[in-house]
Amino acid sequence: MKSIQITGRGRYLPKTKIDNKYLETIFNQNQEYIYEVSGIENRWYEQELTIEEMAYEASKSALENSRISKNEIDYIIVASSSSNNIMPGISYKVQSMLGINNNCMCLDILGGCSGYINAFDIARNYIALEKVKNALVIGVDKLSEIINNEDFSTKILLGDGAGATIISKCEEEKKYFSYIESKGEDSDLLVYKVGKKIEMQGKKIYKYAVKDVPNVITKTLNLANLDISEIDKIILHQSNQRIIDKISEKLGVENKKVFSNINKIGNTFCASIPIALSCIEIKENEKILLCGYGGGLNTGCIILNV
Amino acid sequence: MKSIQITGRGRYLPKTKIDNKYLETIFNQNQEYIYEVSGIENRWYEQELTIEEMAYEASKSALENSRISKNEIDYIIVASSSSNNIMPGISYKVQSMLGINNNCMCLDILGGCSGYINAFDIARNYIALEKVKNALVIGVDKLSEIINNEDFSTKILLGDGAGATIISKCEEEKKYFSYIESKGEDSDLLVYKVGKKIEMQGKKIYKYAVKDVPNVITKTLNLANLDISEIDKIILHQSNQRIIDKISEKLGVENKKVFSNINKIGNTFCASIPIALSCIEIKENEKILLCGYGGGLNTGCIILNV
Repeated sequence: MKSIQITGRGRYLPKTKIDNKYLETIFNQNQEYIYEVSGIENRWYEQELTIEEMAYEASKSALENSRISKNEIDYIIVASSSSNNIMPGISYKVQSMLGINNNCMCLDILGGCSGYINAFDIARNYIALEKVKNALVIGVDKLSEIINNEDFSTKILLGDGAGATIISKCEEEKKYFSYIESKGEDSDLLVYKVGKKIEMQGKKIYKYAVKDVPNVITKTLNLANLDISEIDKIILHQSNQRIIDKISEKLGVENKKVFSNINKIGNTFCASIPIALSCIEIKENEKILLCGYGGGLNTGCIILNV
Repeated sequence: MKSIQITGRGRYLPKTKIDNKYLETIFNQNQEYIYEVSGIENRWYEQELTIEEMAYEASKSALENSRISKNEIDYIIVASSSSNNIMPGISYKVQSMLGINNNCMCLDILGGCSGYINAFDIARNYIALEKVKNALVIGVDKLSEIINNEDFSTKILLGDGAGATIISKCEEEKKYFSYIESKGEDSDLLVYKVGKKIEMQGKKIYKYAVKDVPNVITKTLNLANLDISEIDKIILHQSNQRIIDKISEKLGVENKKVFSNINKIGNTFCASIPIALSCIEIKENEKILLCGYGGGLNTGCIILNV
């Protein structure tokens, strides 16, 4: 079984800033309150590029920061929760825009806000089994198009973005652990049907996140036979700073280990983890923990040696 | 690495028959011509169940024909090209309808008409790596809702259906080979965007299928170090009988080995292979070849010892 390593990280962020001052003019709530309940100062809305173009820009950025060239990519997997491109998916358009013609397998998945974790794990399996050498794993969402503009609870959180990660086979042995669990019985808590708008039961999602995420992280740490104190860096889905803080508190983990950029980016669903991953400094052999959670409900955690 | 075996097969077909006599009344073409160009006598349209309920019915049917009980299922993966349920996907609803509460991972994928092959391969990887014991792999499409009723070329081919397969870890060694390739540069040949209707460039799809499918099958046979004559049963995506015939001819394979039920079912996209798989008799240790092709473009082949 082959090990994997991260060989490229990139992101794309839109140009149109949506700040709390602007939101104050829409809702009968002041800027300070919006920041207090979300931890978010700005979100960004894409007004020019399609969702496929956003995914492509993030992929180019990852390739520019990688020793892997585009023609070495033999798997493209895209996680998104806001596309109406059912067939073909975004991955095929990225393949075409990158000009990768041969022996490349493409796939789009729908894994809710935590879809990037599923995509990463699927790509890792293909590499572990030596079916793929270099996988481009993309998380992209263009939530500005599917937000109900009158819904305070989602409008203050959500923005657009794309993140891309290249993972490659590695001759050196590197540990990898993952655990993903789904709760279809709570599938109504966060819903997006194409043609409608996102509907979120915010209080119930908060309760789910602060309970299930620490549980899933603990299960994954147990698989890895590690204590949370042995993890060097933690990236949680950037859903809401209050949720991130509460999960960190429950895990008993130092704040400095838990990366957050939600104040400047907002919640970009499937893009949040790969964007965050592209923003941190990674040192050889550090232990990194990624955890996604959200619609499905779907909760997934990965611990890897980088 | 664990081997897999098929431990359950099921299907769901709708009740409303669409025969060529009915199509004759819509289009200025007679019944005989419609049969001649498609090889199809009937398709079926679902008028009562949702797409999730169709997937559930096929899953129940697979479980009824299996030694595996629902609570032993720890992965549900659904391939569909016609759902507007972006979040949560169909898999979560199936989990909920089956009443599987614990330790089950769910995922929906968009792999075009050949999505079932990707789903099967992903599930197999999880079992091979001992992350999953029993996977429920579903292909479901409700194309009647997204056909352009004035488009002869798709209207005569497409129908609704659901197929489900349970694959399980197996202590005995069983061979498994797969190969999937994508061609994003031809992504415009078969398109479905939610809110619009399916658009197919029929002649170009025919050319692609009769060229690429034999190539992908040959590549997979080479991986397996097998000659086509050593395969016991072949299931091709039930796209159009003329395409199935032409591919068989190019492969130089006896017609009796190539299963077809398209005359009575039509082209059900992601459901066609698992429905066909549920219709054949399987004998211990036979070598079975499955090949999917279609929108993406995406072409995938699996050869497995059953």
